[in-house]
Amino acid sequence: MDASTLRKIFQQVKSGRISPDDAVARLRHLPFEDLGFAKVDHHRRLRLGLPEVIFSKGKTPQQVAGIFKRMSKHGGNVLATKAEPEHFRAVKKVSGKAEYRELAQAIVLKQDKTRYGKGTVAVISAGTSDIPVAEEALVTAEAMGNDVAHLYDVGVAGIHRLLANKTVLEDARVVIVCAGMEGALPSVVGGLVGVPVIAVPTSIGYGAAFKGLAALLGMLNSCASNVSVVNIDNGFGAGYVASMINRL
Amino acid sequence: MDASTLRKIFQQVKSGRISPDDAVARLRHLPFEDLGFAKVDHHRRLRLGLPEVIFSKGKTPQQVAGIFKRMSKHGGNVLATKAEPEHFRAVKKVSGKAEYRELAQAIVLKQDKTRYGKGTVAVISAGTSDIPVAEEALVTAEAMGNDVAHLYDVGVAGIHRLLANKTVLEDARVVIVCAGMEGALPSVVGGLVGVPVIAVPTSIGYGAAFKGLAALLGMLNSCASNVSVVNIDNGFGAGYVASMINRL
Amino acid sequence: MDASTLRKIFQQVKSGRISPDDAVARLRHLPFEDLGFAKVDHHRRLRLGLPEVIFSKGKTPQQVAGIFKRMSKHGGNVLATKAEPEHFRAVKKVSGKAEYRELAQAIVLKQDKTRYGKGTVAVISAGTSDIPVAEEALVTAEAMGNDVAHLYDVGVAGIHRLLANKTVLEDARVVIVCAGMEGALPSVVGGLVGVPVIAVPTSIGYGAAFKGLAALLGMLNSCASNVSVVNIDNGFGAGYVASMINRL
Amino acid sequence: MDASTLRKIFQQVKSGRISPDDAVARLRHLPFEDLGFAKVDHHRRLRLGLPEVIFSKGKTPQQVAGIFKRMSKHGGNVLATKAEPEHFRAVKKVSGKAEYRELAQAIVLKQDKTRYGKGTVAVISAGTSDIPVAEEALVTAEAMGNDVAHLYDVGVAGIHRLLANKTVLEDARVVIVCAGMEGALPSVVGGLVGVPVIAVPTSIGYGAAFKGLAALLGMLNSCASNVSVVNIDNGFGAGYVASMINRL
Amino acid sequence: MDASTLRKIFQQVKSGRISPDDAVARLRHLPFEDLGFAKVDHHRRLRLGLPEVIFSKGKTPQQVAGIFKRMSKHGGNVLATKAEPEHFRAVKKVSGKAEYRELAQAIVLKQDKTRYGKGTVAVISAGTSDIPVAEEALVTAEAMGNDVAHLYDVGVAGIHRLLANKTVLEDARVVIVCAGMEGALPSVVGGLVGVPVIAVPTSIGYGAAFKGLAALLGMLNSCASNVSVVNIDNGFGAGYVASMINRL
Amino acid sequence: MDASTLRKIFQQVKSGRISPDDAVARLRHLPFEDLGFAKVDHHRRLRLGLPEVIFSKGKTPQQVAGIFKRMSKHGGNVLATKAEPEHFRAVKKVSGKAEYRELAQAIVLKQDKTRYGKGTVAVISAGTSDIPVAEEALVTAEAMGNDVAHLYDVGVAGIHRLLANKTVLEDARVVIVCAGMEGALPSVVGGLVGVPVIAVPTSIGYGAAFKGLAALLGMLNSCASNVSVVNIDNGFGAGYVASMINRL
Amino acid sequence: MDASTLRKIFQQVKSGRISPDDAVARLRHLPFEDLGFAKVDHHRRLRLGLPEVIFSKGKTPQQVAGIFKRMSKHGGNVLATKAEPEHFRAVKKVSGKAEYRELAQAIVLKQDKTRYGKGTVAVISAGTSDIPVAEEALVTAEAMGNDVAHLYDVGVAGIHRLLANKTVLEDARVVIVCAGMEGALPSVVGGLVGVPVIAVPTSIGYGAAFKGLAALLGMLNSCASNVSVVNIDNGFGAGYVASMINRL
Amino acid sequence: MDASTLRKIFQQVKSGRISPDDAVARLRHLPFEDLGFAKVDHHRRLRLGLPEVIFSKGKTPQQVAGIFKRMSKHGGNVLATKAEPEHFRAVKKVSGKAEYRELAQAIVLKQDKTRYGKGTVAVISAGTSDIPVAEEALVTAEAMGNDVAHLYDVGVAGIHRLLANKTVLEDARVVIVCAGMEGALPSVVGGLVGVPVIAVPTSIGYGAAFKGLAALLGMLNSCASNVSVVNIDNGFGAGYVASMINRL
Repeated sequence: MDASTLRKIFQQVKSGRISPDDAVARLRHLPFEDLGFAKVDHHRRLRLGLPEVIFSKGKTPQQVAGIFKRMSKHGGNVLATKAEPEHFRAVKKVSGKAEYRELAQAIVLKQDKTRYGKGTVAVISAGTSDIPVAEEALVTAEAMGNDVAHLYDVGVAGIHRLLANKTVLEDARVVIVCAGMEGALPSVVGGLVGVPVIAVPTSIGYGAAFKGLAALLGMLNSCASNVSVVNIDNGFGAGYVASMINRL
Repeated sequence: MDASTLRKIFQQVKSGRISPDDAVARLRHLPFEDLGFAKVDHHRRLRLGLPEVIFSKGKTPQQVAGIFKRMSKHGGNVLATKAEPEHFRAVKKVSGKAEYRELAQAIVLKQDKTRYGKGTVAVISAGTSDIPVAEEALVTAEAMGNDVAHLYDVGVAGIHRLLANKTVLEDARVVIVCAGMEGALPSVVGGLVGVPVIAVPTSIGYGAAFKGLAALLGMLNSCASNVSVVNIDNGFGAGYVASMINRL
Repeated sequence: MDASTLRKIFQQVKSGRISPDDAVARLRHLPFEDLGFAKVDHHRRLRLGLPEVIFSKGKTPQQVAGIFKRMSKHGGNVLATKAEPEHFRAVKKVSGKAEYRELAQAIVLKQDKTRYGKGTVAVISAGTSDIPVAEEALVTAEAMGNDVAHLYDVGVAGIHRLLANKTVLEDARVVIVCAGMEGALPSVVGGLVGVPVIAVPTSIGYGAAFKGLAALLGMLNSCASNVSVVNIDNGFGAGYVASMINRL
Repeated sequence: MDASTLRKIFQQVKSGRISPDDAVARLRHLPFEDLGFAKVDHHRRLRLGLPEVIFSKGKTPQQVAGIFKRMSKHGGNVLATKAEPEHFRAVKKVSGKAEYRELAQAIVLKQDKTRYGKGTVAVISAGTSDIPVAEEALVTAEAMGNDVAHLYDVGVAGIHRLLANKTVLEDARVVIVCAGMEGALPSVVGGLVGVPVIAVPTSIGYGAAFKGLAALLGMLNSCASNVSVVNIDNGFGAGYVASMINRL
Repeated sequence: MDASTLRKIFQQVKSGRISPDDAVARLRHLPFEDLGFAKVDHHRRLRLGLPEVIFSKGKTPQQVAGIFKRMSKHGGNVLATKAEPEHFRAVKKVSGKAEYRELAQAIVLKQDKTRYGKGTVAVISAGTSDIPVAEEALVTAEAMGNDVAHLYDVGVAGIHRLLANKTVLEDARVVIVCAGMEGALPSVVGGLVGVPVIAVPTSIGYGAAFKGLAALLGMLNSCASNVSVVNIDNGFGAGYVASMINRL
Repeated sequence: MDASTLRKIFQQVKSGRISPDDAVARLRHLPFEDLGFAKVDHHRRLRLGLPEVIFSKGKTPQQVAGIFKRMSKHGGNVLATKAEPEHFRAVKKVSGKAEYRELAQAIVLKQDKTRYGKGTVAVISAGTSDIPVAEEALVTAEAMGNDVAHLYDVGVAGIHRLLANKTVLEDARVVIVCAGMEGALPSVVGGLVGVPVIAVPTSIGYGAAFKGLAALLGMLNSCASNVSVVNIDNGFGAGYVASMINRL
Repeated sequence: MDASTLRKIFQQVKSGRISPDDAVARLRHLPFEDLGFAKVDHHRRLRLGLPEVIFSKGKTPQQVAGIFKRMSKHGGNVLATKAEPEHFRAVKKVSGKAEYRELAQAIVLKQDKTRYGKGTVAVISAGTSDIPVAEEALVTAEAMGNDVAHLYDVGVAGIHRLLANKTVLEDARVVIVCAGMEGALPSVVGGLVGVPVIAVPTSIGYGAAFKGLAALLGMLNSCASNVSVVNIDNGFGAGYVASMINRL
Repeated sequence: MDASTLRKIFQQVKSGRISPDDAVARLRHLPFEDLGFAKVDHHRRLRLGLPEVIFSKGKTPQQVAGIFKRMSKHGGNVLATKAEPEHFRAVKKVSGKAEYRELAQAIVLKQDKTRYGKGTVAVISAGTSDIPVAEEALVTAEAMGNDVAHLYDVGVAGIHRLLANKTVLEDARVVIVCAGMEGALPSVVGGLVGVPVIAVPTSIGYGAAFKGLAALLGMLNSCASNVSVVNIDNGFGAGYVASMINRL
């Protein structure tokens, strides 16, 4: 039941062709969703400044480029994660202002420059191998209109490096911590700051790291109470959650 | 927005106080769920002959009895699963016609004697230890208005016993198979019948049975294509799914 | 002991060469299976309108084509799942009417157009990545003589899209729901319909999705009682079970 | 090296007894932690309005009462989680204003009535069995100075109940969702709101629920991007993270 | 179709009332299992000297005693495993010659003293805690008519003790090895003997022993090729398999 | 201390140069293993008719050929498992009588034609995909001097095919059963025969088959007591254990 | 073959009754272990100052007391781990000088006061709940003749407390770190010290701690290279390994 | 705050521009880590003779060569693990004295020839396939200034080979044991020696070896008390821990 259908009922009521009681009955038997709710959803992302997002893995460069082009027409930011250079080359042809963030394996088109976030989102990573995930989080936060800062390669076995750069932590409104192997860094960071910490386990490691499971379990059992966790290697999710928080 | 609110809008339209267009706009901003959907849900179970169900584990006898009493007022069948004798004693006081099905650990009140199922639901179990789960499935199917049959202790290591009683299988419109340990029986049964088979892994076994995991995995990997699976020890779920099928 | 052997015994009894008692004894020591049961099995699939099925993975195009050709001679439908374009090219040469269903990665030869199913089998998928599994289920249901409908990309995080298309669900006699990641869709669908729901976990997702394990566990623990589950990515199995149900 | 030691060095520098260079050298060889950092930590909780927390499980009533008494002297709120009635009776004797929140199994002493949270923290639970975990989250949020709201028993199999109460969600600044079994609710809620969602898997369920593992995996794989997760049954953690967010 | 039914058909053939061809047809449509196969199964155990076995766990003393009494009437040996002293007291009343093997937690009634095994079955255990499982294997082998020998507490960390008693191994026709923790003993034993080794993982250990899983995996990966494995704590199964082998 | 060293001591004792007591002391401080035990091991395989075995995976064709050549000089049978055609081509050049068993992916050189096994080893497989593992078991049993028989593609979902070929089972002294997916076949076979059954889980299957884990767990929990299990895909191990048994 | 047997052979050689060659042959066929190796093992513990150890769990007070008494006669230290007060009361009666270390749940009898360790073994624990395991490690190290130091409740979420007590770490020759939950402490400690770190995961935690699995995996994946790990809750093992190291 | 900053404060105090109290306050608010701690860390590796280490996997030859060159300038030893021949070719160009240890897949540059270890580190491996991991341990120990010895292919199924070479074990101050499959060797070795044993599970094996999990669990449950464990395939870690111990 779209608007015109609905209007027709009201006009019939107005003209006396059907009684209010009949109209009530008829309305109740119509699927509510035809009332136009779907369309609200259609424009919601844009209105909220949420970027359009494409998960590139398993899609051909042509597919990604096609979706990217269509999405870029809405005027908001567009983000393609897990994108290979081939994906970018295809996208570049249809969307000349798109940029490739190599470390993050992400393609970004910034059309909406609004600052939606109130403070800074800091992204911390334990090892150099965790940087791709950290960068994905960082790019996501940027695409969602946040100031960002980062601090990489500050794992717990060299705790001094982290402590020596505490300023980055202290200035952040939300902190994202990416770590593989034993995943201990979020607990340490959580103990140092008084803001929410989003922990991202990475699949870095081997053997009993079990592709991120060790880090995931470690983070879920963090002894720091201000830590919550997203899926293994889910830098995008962490950036998204952090952005949601930073808008409050 | 309940019916009276809705009626009021229509009356305002009728009386010309608001235009059809305004009414459309106002309606669209009202939460659809106030249109009375919730109440539909309220009566749906009864209308469909679905029993009210109480999961007794972790509830006191008094709690079960209280819920049982309230539910029995709707006039449909009431089923309390995983019920201990203490639960039954409490229920008996408030609902004199309730019966205790000891093997199934279930309390049943049959108020609706309609035959909703078109054929017979057969319940098969591999070992004697699987019988409680099998009986829960059987009692559920009965409470949902099905003819039932059963065949117990026909595990695959003594395949002759199963073959010697093939008639029970051949007469069924849906077959439920309960098995613990290696959970192989559903595959064998699935190969013998041409109707849907609902497999129920049970937590019977020890060591590498891992509380039903071995049986569960076995059933999910069944080489018989007409087999689908419910949760470990979920006799109720199997009886419910089978009843749904038998009504078609 | 084939029919002729059996006949010989009876003729010996008739002619008095052996007594009925001796015949009984002799029969009992003969393997029952020689009574021709195997042959019943041989023709059963055809008689029931069940398609011949080939699992193409791990087979060469020549092997699949060879089996396909042999099977197509029985006059029933033939279905090759998990088939690559190379498989199809080889099959096409030996069975000109075979069609390739690309999304489903399936080759189908429809020789038997009988409608075996009484109602419609609806196939629902949560995300676009789940479509291959959903299509495999759909093609299977078609090959087994069912009317089918589908509804794709209606995941639980955008519940409005599902609700807006409830008609597909309401018109179905059996519903198949394919979902990866958290596998939540079957529970929501199960709560909306009053017919059996077959849930298919897909291996879509990464990290803690553990190749479909998260979705599988989610579906086995569904809070909707009319849900049963098949193996991860087992679109064929879901289509088969749904067809079995739809014939009842 | 406490403040007095430090002052002594400076006085020696001032009086010329040691040169600035010697002072630098001496300082560098002293453990930094004696500079009084530990004491900052000592008062930090109080200054930030963070409650003192006791995990009662595995502690005797006397132990809990003793710690509770000592902690209550700092003037802040005190929270004892997983507390049995015996624990409360012992606490009540030493801290007359402490209250027992039975559903949450928590003892609370509210001495600091400051509103630290800017908006409302909404706590949602899927089933009635999830309520204890939900209540722990709620009590924690209250003890940390937040306005709270709750909505219980709105599981995904009856999606109408959730939709019918969407207002609670829409009014919240942070949402906590507790669910066992398949853990699907956070995805649905995440799709309905534009604020951060903290998901808490509960150990409710049996069989393949594996004591909360199914729900945990489901939540980590949520298709809603604004969801992050805490440990199984960790209502406290969820309340804490939500409070951290709500203060921003 | 029992013998009399069958005889009737043959008599009708003999008397010419039905033709041999009709008889063939009728026979083929009768369930083969009525040909009396089931009864073969009924007496098979006794004829082969296989003991009747009762798994006592989860059964009341009265239940075990009842089954024990009934089984003992067949004249063969009767074995009740996982039996508590209460079980034995109840059995003793109905079967005066039954003995309780305390270490093995088994009740044995030896009525058939035939030596079915050709050589000796040796049972080896790694630690003293593994002895109950080892004894269950030993009692089973005895009840199945084998000469037995044992060697306990010869774990791999004190390899000298095993080597110092190599004679027991060298004299055995089949060797059963029970070990918990790392489950390494079967590999060492397998390397020392030239006969089949049945490995039994036990649930002895803690932490990462995961209730026998570590030992089970160790044994399945044994680098000794003459090792096969039974379920965790399945002393009975090991004794049974060893007896089967020793009869050859 | 080899024989000559030992002899020297005895000669010194004989000649009176050292006293018996000194000799005892000296002997006790010598490593026992120099007494020539190692050499016993060296010739043991040959004396017992055990084949030399090479695990080809991860070795280059040249490496396999080199080892094969060296081993073939001892005069016994040589078996290279998991061998690719390239491996065979290299082996063929250095050992012209070696044969390639394609299905089993094994290279065999039969130099010792002794019949070590007393009866027949039967190898059964559930599906056609399990045949490589079954063939490895079969080739191993042959190379170890056993008569062999096989029965393939007799899975439990078509139990008739197995029953129709029961003779193969009845004639065997040991039975090897290979099955993937749910791994149910060993239980059924175990119930039909009165000899030891060696179960081999295969990694055939997908999704919840978890690369053979489902089959492995199923077999460990077999309700047939005469079943023991070897590692996933370990056809060689099964053939070895069966050969050990068949020699008794 | 004990010393006297051996001497006899030599005497026969001396007296010429057997030739050196015959002696060599006879010796080679005797089991080497009779050469007295076993006895070496018998006294080895004592000579090395290794304590006799009893694992009390699952043993009655009488059993523990009996073993304790027998062991104490050798003159070395005796240690009973996982001992309840009842165990101690029984031991006290037979060994008046035995002491009960309540926190460690250990009974110790110190008869050998030698300092076997060259430096100090430091035991660190993350939380107060980890103290029992830490104390077991500490008591073990003491019983094996080491100077010990400890530092408890210095978890990574409050890294300042650890840093503020770095002296304990710096003075140690070996460090044992006990931690449950995320098990992150060993990595931090490993980064601070230049000596071997023995990590002990504890079963402290709930939910996704999976009884110590999370901590175990974390420690195995430690990014500090000087960390090795023992079993969950294995305080004894850690104390033992540390003592071995400290003796070097 | 580096040294010059610090000196400035002291000079200000000296000159009276700021009071000692102000200096104390200012110091306390400065991050301690600026006191130069980081630099201590900078030179620590070199001073302790610890090699610089590069994990080559996932890095390009150019990257490894670049890091290698930079690190070699510090004058210490440089070790690149998991290095392919391509990595070595690139390194060779920038560091002519670097050597490739093929079996260990390691590149080593020995610039510091100091003997840091006091005794010998022995490396033992169970099978030939475990040698790469064993060699990595060995090369690491060498690069850290230890005398090394090794003993390969002495698995537990041929225990004689190990016993025949016991001298290598007896001469070692620390023993590293590498084993895949069932991982039993460390227990046997641990029982033979009186020094610390570092166990390294390898990912060698198939099926239920689960890529080293079986070996890992076996080693964690070792019945020899002097065994501690590092991650699967972590030869480097074992060599590092052993070196740490051997320096004491």
